Amino acid sequence: MNTEQQENHDGLDEDFALGDRLIDNVIEAIEQRDSVRLTQLLEPLHSADIADILEQISAGQRRALLRLWKGEMEGEVLSELDESLREEVMESLAPEELAEAVRDLETDDVVDLLEDLDAPQQDEILEVLEDADRVAVEQALTYPEDSAGRLMQRELVVAPEHWTVGQAIDYLRSQQDLPEQFYHMILVDPKMRPTGYVTLGKLLSSPRDAKMQDIVEDSFRTISVNQDEEDVAYAFNQYHLISAPVVDDDGRLVGVITIDDAMAVLDEEHEEDMLRLAGVGEGSLSDRVIETSKRRLPWLFVTMFAAIAASFVIAQFEDTIAEFVALAILMPIVASMGGNAGTQALTVAVRALATKDITSANVWRVIRREVLVGMVNGVVFALVMGVIGMLWFGMPMLGVVIGAALVINLLVASLAGVVVPVVLDKLGIDPALASGAFVTTVTDVVGFFAFLGLASVVLL
Amino acid sequence: MNTEQQENHDGLDEDFALGDRLIDNVIEAIEQRDSVRLTQLLEPLHSADIADILEQISAGQRRALLRLWKGEMEGEVLSELDESLREEVMESLAPEELAEAVRDLETDDVVDLLEDLDAPQQDEILEVLEDADRVAVEQALTYPEDSAGRLMQRELVVAPEHWTVGQAIDYLRSQQDLPEQFYHMILVDPKMRPTGYVTLGKLLSSPRDAKMQDIVEDSFRTISVNQDEEDVAYAFNQYHLISAPVVDDDGRLVGVITIDDAMAVLDEEHEEDMLRLAGVGEGSLSDRVIETSKRRLPWLFVTMFAAIAASFVIAQFEDTIAEFVALAILMPIVASMGGNAGTQALTVAVRALATKDITSANVWRVIRREVLVGMVNGVVFALVMGVIGMLWFGMPMLGVVIGAALVINLLVASLAGVVVPVVLDKLGIDPALASGAFVTTVTDVVGFFAFLGLASVVLL
Repeated sequence: MNTEQQENHDGLDEDFALGDRLIDNVIEAIEQRDSVRLTQLLEPLHSADIADILEQISAGQRRALLRLWKGEMEGEVLSELDESLREEVMESLAPEELAEAVRDLETDDVVDLLEDLDAPQQDEILEVLEDADRVAVEQALTYPEDSAGRLMQRELVVAPEHWTVGQAIDYLRSQQDLPEQFYHMILVDPKMRPTGYVTLGKLLSSPRDAKMQDIVEDSFRTISVNQDEEDVAYAFNQYHLISAPVVDDDGRLVGVITIDDAMAVLDEEHEEDMLRLAGVGEGSLSDRVIETSKRRLPWLFVTMFAAIAASFVIAQFEDTIAEFVALAILMPIVASMGGNAGTQALTVAVRALATKDITSANVWRVIRREVLVGMVNGVVFALVMGVIGMLWFGMPMLGVVIGAALVINLLVASLAGVVVPVVLDKLGIDPALASGAFVTTVTDVVGFFAFLGLASVVLL
Repeated sequence: MNTEQQENHDGLDEDFALGDRLIDNVIEAIEQRDSVRLTQLLEPLHSADIADILEQISAGQRRALLRLWKGEMEGEVLSELDESLREEVMESLAPEELAEAVRDLETDDVVDLLEDLDAPQQDEILEVLEDADRVAVEQALTYPEDSAGRLMQRELVVAPEHWTVGQAIDYLRSQQDLPEQFYHMILVDPKMRPTGYVTLGKLLSSPRDAKMQDIVEDSFRTISVNQDEEDVAYAFNQYHLISAPVVDDDGRLVGVITIDDAMAVLDEEHEEDMLRLAGVGEGSLSDRVIETSKRRLPWLFVTMFAAIAASFVIAQFEDTIAEFVALAILMPIVASMGGNAGTQALTVAVRALATKDITSANVWRVIRREVLVGMVNGVVFALVMGVIGMLWFGMPMLGVVIGAALVINLLVASLAGVVVPVVLDKLGIDPALASGAFVTTVTDVVGFFAFLGLASVVLL
């Protein structure tokens, strides 16, 4: 976004964002129907950046670009595209173009591309793959969605566990088609069960007669093919893994996951948590208004029903409000403060659950701490708002009422903020679904009830 | 959290969380002052898991554990600990213990450990390092905080660009102490400027007489030593980098960043965004109540002042509310809906800015889309709540008023939700600081003004 930054030779800003000038040039080339210029501009770019350009230009510009750029689309660009655009772009390609683009991809990327398509489209793409690749992709699709089996690549570099360094090096030197990406040689027993791995760096710096088993990494850990990809990402981050062997139910090696895929999952999971907390379904900036609107409506409906519940609470105190309009004036303060305190506690809890930092050892301590924090902050604001309330309306008891209501509401807010996500997690539901909207509503209801209820008792 | 899961041999749940049984056993060993048992339990664990245990047990248990575990503390555990606990744990170690723990660490981990300490403590640790390491650490500390210079490791594996594969392999085979982690051999020109890199896998599978220059990776990208670590993490994720050379202002190679460090930064940046959006300062679950409370007070104060502003708005319509208490009852619905719609738009915008998905090419389109989404959703809820309002209070015009107020408020909420973070980003301020609390308040003020203002005009 920062236009003052210098653009590098490939048109990226210093912070790796797409430069304004690059985008302007691309749009100009599209408008002038200048396919030579367009190719010149796009050719030096990484496929992830080309995908970003496709996402950021308008739908009309995108169609024009795809027409002008005919025949140059690469599978990598498809794989980098937002899911919502992928289908649009894939439909714009001729069958043979699509086939060629897909054929260059690694099988794990093909799986990623296929899993969101309808069956007939899937078949179309599967048909163009080579036999071995097709079998691999079909096999991967049998694993549950978002599992390690979908994420792994099947190209492996293994060695019998009894080999020496010399044997391993000679073997690698003799291979013609090693995988594009591999960082370890995995040791396996005669039943293909992984027993350790050796980094290529360690391999290269060890004497030929050293035993592979003696130079394995401590960090070695296997991942079950059915493991949720969120846990896979957690394991990579927690244990600084670079790659990890994936095993089936019998412990046999079936694939390997590399850290770049785990990093992408970590990033997606984070996006999901953040959006869920805000009550937004996943989508893309290039979605149309009506799709975006639809994705946001469900939580707004939940909010509406919850807000109506809060209104019912207020309605019970109609007479009190009619007598003291000051109550209507101060009501939103109790609600806002409670909502905010609840969101704070909720966010901290959701994050801690995502990083597996809440366990049986500390769950009660964490809950107790939240209650105490709610109480301390409640007292702080009870004093401040109590004085303000008194001075504003010249009614000492009104100050006492708002103070007491704040203590109650901040305490309940903190408690709900931590307990709701912990319970959801225990039930196997994503705690981020305890969205801010939900906790805010709890605090609205409690806040209004405490404030107006106390007022009825004390002021009337 | 899920206690039904099976625990693995090392005491972890299937999803890599610390198992309940493991934690219970550790606490039992602590209570029985059984240091042999404790060592047996902790020894097989990864340092990251030991750090998690230290974070999750109570302060008293932690002190007891550190006493029982005397002499076994490793530098890796210190580096994995939350910053808030690190100081506490480091102070519990005897100087020679600390020295030994630190000496085993890579220099980038030492930098990470040192940067949060006071100068006298820093000096104490610097003194125990070997000369070469101390110089490296001191040098790293001269780079700005959160920059690539702090993140990089200085252990490098380079080759002159004119070498052949054979020369490179022979060189690597002859080295005694290659870095713990390296995945590429970096090619440099005579001025030590990196010109490309070759993966070890490619190196191993290429013929001896192939030129290194001919087998370099396309993904090659250098990172400036002053680059913000957030942008570094972005680049790794965007371009699927595994490692990247870091260069100084003259383009000379000074270090290398590996993806595991970039992944950790990505995770921390996520945490920061999430917590900032909720108006919470960074901290740890093991912080004390009073520290936690202090971290949450600032935004609660902002909320309070903003809520008071909303109350002032309401106060202007005191007479209208006294006449129609139904207004006080329905007020919170307008505020809640607006607050929720604003938070949705805000979260989507903050995320898109973090992934550099908003640029000059689409910023106006994104803003226009938000306004339209706000309008569409506003109309949907205007109809629903309009009817509910009419039926509930039997006043058709009240339905019209709440409907109109919802359209205005949802439109303003969506607009504020996207414009505020975009402007902050443009100004170089973290857009996540446009926390939900802030946008909620804008929508409270606008919502109350629209609802009560319209009511005064229409109903009176």
